[in-house]
Amino acid sequence: MSSLLEQLIEAFRILPGVGQKTAQRMAYHVLEREREGGRRLATALADAVERVGHCARCRDFSETEVCATCASAARDAHQLCVVESPADRLAIEQATGFRGLYYVLQGRLSPLDGIGPREIGLDRLAERLGEGEVQELIIATNPTVEGEATAQYLAQLARQHGTRPSRLAHGVPLGGELEYVDRGTLSHAFGSRSEMM
Amino acid sequence: MSSLLEQLIEAFRILPGVGQKTAQRMAYHVLEREREGGRRLATALADAVERVGHCARCRDFSETEVCATCASAARDAHQLCVVESPADRLAIEQATGFRGLYYVLQGRLSPLDGIGPREIGLDRLAERLGEGEVQELIIATNPTVEGEATAQYLAQLARQHGTRPSRLAHGVPLGGELEYVDRGTLSHAFGSRSEMM
Repeated sequence: MSSLLEQLIEAFRILPGVGQKTAQRMAYHVLEREREGGRRLATALADAVERVGHCARCRDFSETEVCATCASAARDAHQLCVVESPADRLAIEQATGFRGLYYVLQGRLSPLDGIGPREIGLDRLAERLGEGEVQELIIATNPTVEGEATAQYLAQLARQHGTRPSRLAHGVPLGGELEYVDRGTLSHAFGSRSEMM
Repeated sequence: MSSLLEQLIEAFRILPGVGQKTAQRMAYHVLEREREGGRRLATALADAVERVGHCARCRDFSETEVCATCASAARDAHQLCVVESPADRLAIEQATGFRGLYYVLQGRLSPLDGIGPREIGLDRLAERLGEGEVQELIIATNPTVEGEATAQYLAQLARQHGTRPSRLAHGVPLGGELEYVDRGTLSHAFGSRSEMM
């Protein structure tokens, strides 16, 4: 039976990017200087793990049946932005002035891993598009092979329901230097150049 | 009142080196993929924060009155290694074959911050040296200004009690390249060169 300290170090290793050394540093830090914070973290973790589920409408994390965004009358239900993960949703919400609604896939199509349309909630998305309220489906899946395949599938689904699909622009990131931009992005940005006014 | 998810992200920020972005990633990771691990971490944290105290003999973390190392009959009580923190103690225990005992200061002398000999347990260390069992005091405080001042103080304390003080060797780290070693270390290593056999 290992000591409480060893158990704590081991437990920290479930966190992303945390190896043995970092876990040790975290455990020592909490015990030396942050016992009160450690108590708060323990409570917050236990509560969140027990009580945070998924919004019945957008599949984002929510501790209520329907999340605050979906329940808000101030959001525009004509625009629906589809993202792969809650983190992507948060990034868009923080970076843009988007006032529409979201749909969180909690994954991407990956037939080899057994992840088909049902697993990422596309059956319910199809029903929602069928209701006719969504006019534009903004597809914000990641620019990876699987994300692109998912985007193609989503665009087709949108068209079937008479909804206009759109995709985030690809190109050279702002503030980047051309020589460090990867070939695929550069080639795409070159091909999709737009006329300057 | 913020949501459970927001509370969890905020709570993660007590950990060393964890800012807003990392805290978000941790919270999402636990909720998406590691609920069981999150439950274990919550329990381990709560238990450790409540029940891990300090060993009455060496001041290291311990959930018992006297820690396993101090209580072990297999360790050599003639050698006492003084370190600043539990992490330093662990590093020495893992890297060396040291079979003596430790004394953990939980700090270093820093008069400007009000940290004097009593605050880092030097009164009890003096008593222990007075018992006469310790023959060598291995001083392994950090090679910083405050660590060196603490080392000088400890060496004097040892001599007063007829104990031999020793200090970890300073020099060029193994595997390092000379051109990247800082000046102070290089100068010290040069001055302390030893004859090759």
